[in-house]
Formats: sequence, C-alpha cells, structure tokens
Amino acid sequence: MESAMPDLPEAYEPTARTEPTRARERASYDRELVHSILDQAYVCHLGFVRDGAPVVLPTLFARVGETLYVHGSTGSRPLRMTGEADPGLPVCLTVTHVDGLVLARSAFHHSLNYRSVVVHGTAHQVTDPAEKRTALDALVDHAVPGRSTDSRPANAKELAATAVARLDLREVSAKTRTGGPNDELTDLTLPYWAGVIPVATEYGAAIPAADLSDATPVPSYLTGRP
Amino acid sequence: MESAMPDLPEAYEPTARTEPTRARERASYDRELVHSILDQAYVCHLGFVRDGAPVVLPTLFARVGETLYVHGSTGSRPLRMTGEADPGLPVCLTVTHVDGLVLARSAFHHSLNYRSVVVHGTAHQVTDPAEKRTALDALVDHAVPGRSTDSRPANAKELAATAVARLDLREVSAKTRTGGPNDELTDLTLPYWAGVIPVATEYGAAIPAADLSDATPVPSYLTGRP
Repeated sequence: MESAMPDLPEAYEPTARTEPTRARERASYDRELVHSILDQAYVCHLGFVRDGAPVVLPTLFARVGETLYVHGSTGSRPLRMTGEADPGLPVCLTVTHVDGLVLARSAFHHSLNYRSVVVHGTAHQVTDPAEKRTALDALVDHAVPGRSTDSRPANAKELAATAVARLDLREVSAKTRTGGPNDELTDLTLPYWAGVIPVATEYGAAIPAADLSDATPVPSYLTGRP
Repeated sequence: MESAMPDLPEAYEPTARTEPTRARERASYDRELVHSILDQAYVCHLGFVRDGAPVVLPTLFARVGETLYVHGSTGSRPLRMTGEADPGLPVCLTVTHVDGLVLARSAFHHSLNYRSVVVHGTAHQVTDPAEKRTALDALVDHAVPGRSTDSRPANAKELAATAVARLDLREVSAKTRTGGPNDELTDLTLPYWAGVIPVATEYGAAIPAADLSDATPVPSYLTGRP
C-alpha cells in the first residue's frame, strides 16, 4: 500500500498539539509507524466536546489511505454531531496497544511498553454513497480481514440507519515505549525482581452461533488469525 | 471490599450524561459491575478539553474505593491543568475491555462483545501526602497486584516530581455486550459462517532485565497471574 502513495512525505508534520511536552524520545511522526499502529487495532477511543465537557467513547474504526472512518447509528450522539454544523465535529481519536508491564526496582520507574497514536482533527459525516460503502466494508475488514466479501452487504434500509464519519490523518503523532526498566544505578543491587511481563491480545477458537448449520465451515480468514 | 461499604447504594445514579440515547439494554449503573470492569484494567483513556478541543490520552489509573487516581510527571499537560484552577479539570475517563468479535451473516449486524465504563467528573490534584502515597501504591498494585510492597518506594525527590489527580466515582455508567450475533431471521439460511471469536489479554512469561542478578527469583505474584 505504501508504495502506491509515492507522493506522501515519510512523516506527518508536527504541530503545537502533537509536539510532546515530555518524553520526546518516545514520540514519532513516521507515517508507516502510525499506519501500522492503527491497522493492528480496530477499537479506538473517540473524544469530543459536549456542552463544554469532554466525552470519550470506545468505537470501531478503520483506515483507508489517509482517512479514518467511524460509524454508528444515525441516532448516536457523536455521529449526529458530525453532521449538525458545516464545520464538523472537533475530535481526538486515540489508539493504544499495551505490549508489556515494565517492572523496575523502584516504584517510580515502573512503566508500560505500549504503542499509541493520537489523531486530532475534525470529523465530517460521509454523504457520498460510494465512500460510505467503502468505509463500511473497511470497518468490517479492519476487525476481520476478508469478512466484508463473505457476509451479506448492507441493504438500503441498513445503509440509511448507519451514519459514517471521516477524519483525515493530518495532525497525527505516535508514541511508543519498548525495552526493559530504566532503574537508577544505585537501585541495581536491591533485591527486587525487575523486567518485563509481555502483554498481547489473544484470539480464541471460533464459537459458532447457536443457530448456525453444522455444515457451515469456519472460514480460512478466521482460522489463520495470528 | 464491597461488604466493607454497606452504606453505598447498589447502583450509581443516572444523569443526563450517562443515560444512553440508544442500546439501553446494554447500559448499567451497577456499582459492583462498574468496579469489576475498572479493576480488571489498568490503562484508561482520559479525555479533557484544551483550547476548546478534545484531547484523549492513554494513561494508567487505579481505583481506591469510590475514587480513581491517575498520575504523571508534574510537567505533563493534563496533570498541570488539574492544579491550575480551583475548580479542577473536567475529564471523561473511559475503560474498555474487548471480549469478542461478533460475526453475523449480515455486515450490518457485526458487533463486538465488550465491557466499558465511562466516568464523567472533575479531576483535582492530590495535595495530601498520605493520599498521594496511597494513590501511587494503588497505581503500581492495580497493574501488578502485590508489587508495591516488593519494590523501593518513591523517595522525596520522586514524590515531588510526580503529580497525582483524583476523580470521584459519581457520574458513572457501564456498557456491556455479550453473546452471539443477532441476525435477521431472513438471513439465517445464508451460507455465511456466524459466531464469536473470543478476544482476551494474554500475559507472557516474565523476561528478566538484562542487568538482573540470576539469583533473583521471579516473584509468586507474577507467576500466578491468570
């Protein structure tokens, strides 16, 4: 995919909002890194402002090129808000993978290994029917690659009941921590264990629906999941 | 723990902000459910408003009774903001567990099994030294139960460099989805597989720090982790 977009610079441009105030060595604007962190997730935390106060909701998302999509019922609050005013809805979309618990000799130096992406921008409702279909397929395939072509596509009524919002990847930063604990030199001889407990997401064996015919095999895109 | 707090009602009081506009059957205000969802996590997504725009950042948190704590460098933006003004910082703190990918015959009825908690409120900086110590111990123990008494406690310099903010559990709701897909009756005969892919967090074997003495055994609170 990356090679098909030769005109894009390798990194996103930092802005006042995406420049870290601390732990600068953990921040990155690298486009490929940002894409990989986004693409390994399918749940994001979407923040917006309602009546002056912050709201953060978990929701599915998908990336198509340099655009992220979220969807929901046309009755859901944030989706309604994206369409309420021409300027759209200012949002912050954040994706986080926890990769490890980092145990140091000192309580202070305990940490997490993680990869996160924070996207600032304005969400707009998608009104073009073709873009909406592309987005909905991407949302299904982002969680289960290959699934959109192996399920019944949305019909007109379902499409009408679903709102999709887009958010362009412009003001974006990634943050990552890897490796072991960074203990104080004077703490190295303390008798406490130190190191990393790896954390990963595990996918279990597919559980067929109670009303599924026994003759329906588990598709290969499910059994092949890492 | 619950039995030690006999005066608390079984459920949080719904408010305009915590009443769902849709999928009401998934919402709950049950105190025990809220606590269990919070206590099985240690990373939350904290939302606040900066210059009128939403910001969502992943951060560690811990629960002590009816209070949540987050911490950070005294130089970090949200922590500074909790102490900037007497009224504190309006925040939304959200915790999400993904339990399964729900595959329906129709793209439209694809879903996630999940448990989430959304807390609205105002974060205040903790200034009482005893409460700050309690909070920091809880933050370590929330991620690794038993660890705070098996590591070097923070010294005066480290305490001074760490800011802690508190958020009371008052305006709180949980949302959960469980079970298989809810397909349309007319879709049940379609040839697509339907069911659930379980999703769980997996903890790997402890990896000792490169500078750890071979004589230091892996503590039992790590090997016993589910």
